Amino acid sequence: MADATIIDGKAFAATLRERVAGEVAALKAEHGLTPGLAVVLVGEDPASQVYVRNKGEQTEAAGMYSETHRLPADTAEADLFALVDRLNADPNIHGILVQFPVPAHLSQDRIVARISPDKDVDGLTVLNAGRLASGLPALTACTPVGCMMLIRDALGGELRGKRAVVIGRSNLMGKPMAQLLLAADCTVTIAHSRTVDLPAVCREADILVAAVGRAEMVKGDWIKPGAVVIDVGITRLPSLDPEKAAQGKTRIVGDVDFKQALAAAGAVTPVPGGVGPMTIACLLQNTLTAAKRIHGLEG
Amino acid sequence: MADATIIDGKAFAATLRERVAGEVAALKAEHGLTPGLAVVLVGEDPASQVYVRNKGEQTEAAGMYSETHRLPADTAEADLFALVDRLNADPNIHGILVQFPVPAHLSQDRIVARISPDKDVDGLTVLNAGRLASGLPALTACTPVGCMMLIRDALGGELRGKRAVVIGRSNLMGKPMAQLLLAADCTVTIAHSRTVDLPAVCREADILVAAVGRAEMVKGDWIKPGAVVIDVGITRLPSLDPEKAAQGKTRIVGDVDFKQALAAAGAVTPVPGGVGPMTIACLLQNTLTAAKRIHGLEG
Repeated sequence: MADATIIDGKAFAATLRERVAGEVAALKAEHGLTPGLAVVLVGEDPASQVYVRNKGEQTEAAGMYSETHRLPADTAEADLFALVDRLNADPNIHGILVQFPVPAHLSQDRIVARISPDKDVDGLTVLNAGRLASGLPALTACTPVGCMMLIRDALGGELRGKRAVVIGRSNLMGKPMAQLLLAADCTVTIAHSRTVDLPAVCREADILVAAVGRAEMVKGDWIKPGAVVIDVGITRLPSLDPEKAAQGKTRIVGDVDFKQALAAAGAVTPVPGGVGPMTIACLLQNTLTAAKRIHGLEG
Repeated sequence: MADATIIDGKAFAATLRERVAGEVAALKAEHGLTPGLAVVLVGEDPASQVYVRNKGEQTEAAGMYSETHRLPADTAEADLFALVDRLNADPNIHGILVQFPVPAHLSQDRIVARISPDKDVDGLTVLNAGRLASGLPALTACTPVGCMMLIRDALGGELRGKRAVVIGRSNLMGKPMAQLLLAADCTVTIAHSRTVDLPAVCREADILVAAVGRAEMVKGDWIKPGAVVIDVGITRLPSLDPEKAAQGKTRIVGDVDFKQALAAAGAVTPVPGGVGPMTIACLLQNTLTAAKRIHGLEG
């Protein structure tokens, strides 16, 4: 079997960002409206700081208004809520993203519930989950939206009747992913840690989405020949080079054994460079969508 | 193969109604609280009138307060909304059910959106769909809740890791059914009109739920030997006796070819007498749950 196509998420995300930037320019020109994204970071987590900086830079590169609020790690809930309330009411802000995880004294659920569903560009609120489940216009979590774009592209848009298997059932990834695939007329199976004979279930899939966070769990013989394999997992392992590993060097792998998948799948996303770059690009798109809807310019 | 167990929904529903009545009596004695259900019927649809009467009678038989509002077929939306608003605010009412279908000049979606999610005992509001999808306490549509009870009973509670296939993806039945099975740790597949090779997909199922409304579509060789088969469909066909058929006599069948299923399945619900009787019993239970939650007596 020929090697699988490697899905280039980085290039796809760059194209998507350009498209968003074009729409933002048109929105400014035609309606005098600049979509605005506010990112809130509580504490000093180094990885979160990198994400937040990237988000701010890419938001501005797309021609949007960007605001970043850095709060100390010991911020009281009331103070964080006051900021969220202010952003909910701010007409220059159309998307609000609180970077998770937050320090342990804060409740992620309570923070999410405080964000206006109309500005919930992470698609985390209960109302947006309900809109998605009910087939209504929703703001949907960025990672599954990005995965859908890659899947549509890999299949030339032909999703109807395809069997899709999603491994993982989180509110942020697995469940919305299943809803999106179902809305695209796939026959959808949700598998998870309690699934019996997971390899056999995976082998049914024309579209296999792995989102469990277990390094290289999905092996080549779990993959139906020719399937589209989307790898959402990100795990940091020691470098394969013992010397580098001794120096603390690491490598990043996904939920799929990439080398084995290359020999079995029709198309597969690499980690890094697959799903990852799509997430911020979809955040920009969600912010654009939120701005349009708030101003009655889109369903 | 021995004949399948015929799941007696009528007997199960009677037991459930007794249990609800017992809890209602306790709630009255301990908290002076009587759960109340308001049913709203717009127009003169004869089938709806029968349902509504049954609901009212069973509500009172369970010791609850029952109110039925019969509005003329030409009721204006504003008048219906005024009634819903009044029921939303009424402390004696804990469940509100608008009988569907409503006359064509009224929008089901707009009516549902008007009902307080805390009193939405049909589990139709977007917020309850989101709560269910997010794993939060929700009021969930009565028919899937009833199906879950029959499934749990048939399997002695052992659902974990079972493969479940739901045929149909409506907001009222298929989607919440899939969510409930997923929450019970089943590996869940949602099939529908676009599914390719539906018989083969069905044969994977340890638990098969048919909810499409196509008479006797599921044949014996679609059923994995020993599977639990839940038939949600109700279709009225002409009587098998040509003479009676000529007189307009009808019979009711489900989505499953019952005779064939008997030879293949481990357990199967009949139509009528399977899922049907569970629906009103679950409505009573939802009203009880809503009353407890509104008064802070349960999650």
